[in-house]
Amino acid sequence: MTAKPLNRFSVAPLSGMTRRLADVAAGRAAPDLVITGARILSTYSERILPDREVWVAGGRIAAVKPAGSHVGDALRTDVRGGLIAPGLVDPHLHIESSMVTACAYAEAALVNGTTSIVCDSHEIGNVLDVNGVAWMLEDAREAPLNIFLTVPSTVPATTPEFETAGGDLTAEKIAALFDAWPEAIGLGEKMDFVAVAAGDERAHSIIRAALERGRPVSGHVYGRDFVAAYAASGVTDTHEAIDADIADDLLEAGLWIFLRGGPPTTPWHSLPKAIGTVTEYGAAWKRVCACTDDRDADDLIAFGLDWVVREAVARGIPKPAAWAMGSLHGATRYGLDGEIGGLGGGRRADLVLLDDDLVPQATWYGGELVVEDRKPTARLEQALARPYRYPAPAYATMRLPDPLPPLIPALPPGPCIVNAIRTTLPGIELTHERLALTPGAGWPETLAAHGLCHVAVIERHGRSGGVAHGLLSAFGLTRGAVASSVGHDSHNVIVAGLDEADMRVALRAIAAQGGGVCVVEAGEVVALVPLPVAGLLSDKRVGAVAEEMKALKAAWERAGCSIPYMGFNLIPLSVIPQIRITDKGLVLVPETVQVPLFEAA
Amino acid sequence: MTAKPLNRFSVAPLSGMTRRLADVAAGRAAPDLVITGARILSTYSERILPDREVWVAGGRIAAVKPAGSHVGDALRTDVRGGLIAPGLVDPHLHIESSMVTACAYAEAALVNGTTSIVCDSHEIGNVLDVNGVAWMLEDAREAPLNIFLTVPSTVPATTPEFETAGGDLTAEKIAALFDAWPEAIGLGEKMDFVAVAAGDERAHSIIRAALERGRPVSGHVYGRDFVAAYAASGVTDTHEAIDADIADDLLEAGLWIFLRGGPPTTPWHSLPKAIGTVTEYGAAWKRVCACTDDRDADDLIAFGLDWVVREAVARGIPKPAAWAMGSLHGATRYGLDGEIGGLGGGRRADLVLLDDDLVPQATWYGGELVVEDRKPTARLEQALARPYRYPAPAYATMRLPDPLPPLIPALPPGPCIVNAIRTTLPGIELTHERLALTPGAGWPETLAAHGLCHVAVIERHGRSGGVAHGLLSAFGLTRGAVASSVGHDSHNVIVAGLDEADMRVALRAIAAQGGGVCVVEAGEVVALVPLPVAGLLSDKRVGAVAEEMKALKAAWERAGCSIPYMGFNLIPLSVIPQIRITDKGLVLVPETVQVPLFEAA
Repeated sequence: MTAKPLNRFSVAPLSGMTRRLADVAAGRAAPDLVITGARILSTYSERILPDREVWVAGGRIAAVKPAGSHVGDALRTDVRGGLIAPGLVDPHLHIESSMVTACAYAEAALVNGTTSIVCDSHEIGNVLDVNGVAWMLEDAREAPLNIFLTVPSTVPATTPEFETAGGDLTAEKIAALFDAWPEAIGLGEKMDFVAVAAGDERAHSIIRAALERGRPVSGHVYGRDFVAAYAASGVTDTHEAIDADIADDLLEAGLWIFLRGGPPTTPWHSLPKAIGTVTEYGAAWKRVCACTDDRDADDLIAFGLDWVVREAVARGIPKPAAWAMGSLHGATRYGLDGEIGGLGGGRRADLVLLDDDLVPQATWYGGELVVEDRKPTARLEQALARPYRYPAPAYATMRLPDPLPPLIPALPPGPCIVNAIRTTLPGIELTHERLALTPGAGWPETLAAHGLCHVAVIERHGRSGGVAHGLLSAFGLTRGAVASSVGHDSHNVIVAGLDEADMRVALRAIAAQGGGVCVVEAGEVVALVPLPVAGLLSDKRVGAVAEEMKALKAAWERAGCSIPYMGFNLIPLSVIPQIRITDKGLVLVPETVQVPLFEAA
Repeated sequence: MTAKPLNRFSVAPLSGMTRRLADVAAGRAAPDLVITGARILSTYSERILPDREVWVAGGRIAAVKPAGSHVGDALRTDVRGGLIAPGLVDPHLHIESSMVTACAYAEAALVNGTTSIVCDSHEIGNVLDVNGVAWMLEDAREAPLNIFLTVPSTVPATTPEFETAGGDLTAEKIAALFDAWPEAIGLGEKMDFVAVAAGDERAHSIIRAALERGRPVSGHVYGRDFVAAYAASGVTDTHEAIDADIADDLLEAGLWIFLRGGPPTTPWHSLPKAIGTVTEYGAAWKRVCACTDDRDADDLIAFGLDWVVREAVARGIPKPAAWAMGSLHGATRYGLDGEIGGLGGGRRADLVLLDDDLVPQATWYGGELVVEDRKPTARLEQALARPYRYPAPAYATMRLPDPLPPLIPALPPGPCIVNAIRTTLPGIELTHERLALTPGAGWPETLAAHGLCHVAVIERHGRSGGVAHGLLSAFGLTRGAVASSVGHDSHNVIVAGLDEADMRVALRAIAAQGGGVCVVEAGEVVALVPLPVAGLLSDKRVGAVAEEMKALKAAWERAGCSIPYMGFNLIPLSVIPQIRITDKGLVLVPETVQVPLFEAA
């Protein structure tokens, strides 16, 4: 096969194309493609413009003209009054959450009208350090999608005292990534907001490496009390505004606000509340964007950035403005508005045909039709058939202790207090619950009496070989065990269960795949999504992984789990309140102190 | 004197200050200054926020907090309910038009609440090539103002065939300027829009030099027919939108719109019509900015960017949004919104105290009070007392032919057609008038019969020594002569008069000063503004030059001139319709062809 590649570099830089585009726009040369009979959704003026046509040459927009202007040779597509808009620009997401490679991610993005993304590869960075980030960038360069990077800023999320990660991205390594990769357009979400606000030297040296290179710094912050010190530290965006009050504070502190939308049953859907800064408090929306942040492979298809934009419309934002929040605004935040985010002359011809509800029907990527009737075209299929292959070390990251340590702690002989982790919907924050235990005959009775199950985090980077034991309250598991090699952010393995035998089965099942997530019942694996690349990614097409994920979710629900898989993965994330468990034990946030599982009563 | 310098570098880069600012914002360290009792004009949300205070440390904003929050040590200023806004950001202007150096310009800017400017030094570039641009950048670095540069893109404005300039900025020289000066943040207005739209190689090679370096390209375009090809050439802003229709076209073509305001009696006030894209056609204003472009020293004080913002308010834009057009939007266009344009954490403490009509009362530059009660403070006076001094070659640019050639052409013996230049208000465009002359006894009778006067352009760069003769229609001069060494863009000397003797007196008067502008009556110089630096700039303080300019304007008016001095200076500008005169003769625009003064009848 010698098919022409389809990736970001298939369209030449504008610097070398200005004369040709001027020739086409002025009528001295023919466009390659004319999309006529269109209404235009203008992200610049936030209006719908009737009776237009788009002239495309060399994969870029030569001009938008009145419909019928072009009379000579050109491939001509009549969209019969359909709405043409710029492709969406997702300013913050993690490809790894989708459990697929960048090349595979592109398919789902394009179907949903997203043609550019800014990804923060901090998951693979936590597992494989600089190599992981670089491999994903290579993957990204081969994908049929504009993929820019914010360099992971917080690997590990806290410190080796609190967790064992595979990666350790120092300021020096981050600086080297900026210098080596021009698509590294910013510093990724600075998750250790407590350390940043406290003036921690490592945190600030990493911010310094970005600012010295003119790269903006992305944020991640909870709690209105932290906003001022965090903003003063040079952070200029956030996607973690969970309500209108903190969104308003952050906007006034100079941050661009990325409204995160996600499946309403998950904790990702902060848009409905946060958008109140505009709809209730009257703030201008010019510095408000939409983003997805995290999507599993299944939700990626049903809940794309287009869906988030429609959620903004449902909350009262006019359609063209909402689409601008999903495209031009994010492009502007990153200084990319001369290249993407609108239908101006010279821009990439990344275009979407929308119905009147803003549902994408067709997508052109760099002037090539890649999605038609919501399905990949032959041209896209051809490109997707030759994805990037991660090198062998990326397939060898499950380095669990051998033999496996005990996954369940010894039950104290007398009365004690346990520091339990209460899981509650929507599931990002976890509640610290102190329970008085009066142990009975053994664990089964104790768990049942208090509505608890076991949880363990097992180090998997071949370092300490450690394990930490904890207890989940209200997790709802009625049988068996669930386990995942995705366990934010250090991605040690997290396993929850009612008995050790099922927990071991689950652990061995994902280890055998080089990573994955599974549900076990009575000693049998009933659902499994293999994630062999870094223990985070499948190497299959997104549709296949979505099917596996659907089966997993069904089994997950049957097992009784009260929070979804993606909330479960966050249980080790030691930067979100109130209590988390890493391979080093239980941590309180934002206090950032360790506590034992059992205390004397 | 060992006074501490006051310039852009008096405030350290944010990259090295984040820890200190976080300490102050979090209350662990004291701010240097607290401006309390303030209402805040938020350019981010376009709202007025009551009861706030601004904490300043190291010349930057540590935080904006509720009034009364700070209780410890700090210099405290209570503005008693006054409105605190970010300093204005002028995204496009030419310092040379103000006839003063960058250091002197700063005074007038600060008094009017402008703390950052993006200047295009193409006038001095036309006279002194790269050296002139570099010297003005050195001047800018010593000024108490944030001065960024768009590198002059169109020097000479056309080609040596049409005019003789002192400078010739090739793509190579422009690339070298970008690489040498980090404050060179964009390519200056690409004035040869006809050549750009036509695909001219030199024009596009210059655009390429900018785009390859990630620098955006500023525009200058007239005529809706040129918009598409111009935008396709990579241009992403313009300040030349003269009415709502072309402003709307340009906005939709992806350009940022800079609404230019200026004295209503001059041609610079295009804002009232152009703003119709927003106020009549309903476009969003997020990509609309305000700018001044050109101001003489006198108008610079009365018609600052603050005045332009108020003009936008008078046309219906809400006050906070109008101020954002004059600050944040321009900063965002140049990717500087993390540094200036708003009151977010970490930004420079460039602040303005406004009354409720948005008239600046006080200005802080990098946290230092530089203007109080609309007057420079002692701190600013100290800084202004030690301006940059241009090197000797900048003072030796009036290299007129010696002896002077005839300034008046021989009158054809029989009937003929003259290609006259009709001057009409507002004065940017000039009308091509073809007059049938039946010469009488001599020039005086002929001029009187047709309402004409002489005009000549004399090469002054020591090159060709050429002179071109023309005739102005309706210029209104009733006596004597007027002359200027500012003659856009090549800055050859332009002189108009009723007889050659007075024209020679005028020419010698400005030559004796190394450049200038003057009015002559009956052999006597009645008003003169010396401009010894490059024949463009005074080396005095702005107030002194403004006084000289007031006297000149009075004499100018007494002499009967129908268009103001700044319109007169544009008569040689061979990129604006319909007819202009350079040292090489008469040129029709946009046809870009030369025509003789006299044609056979």
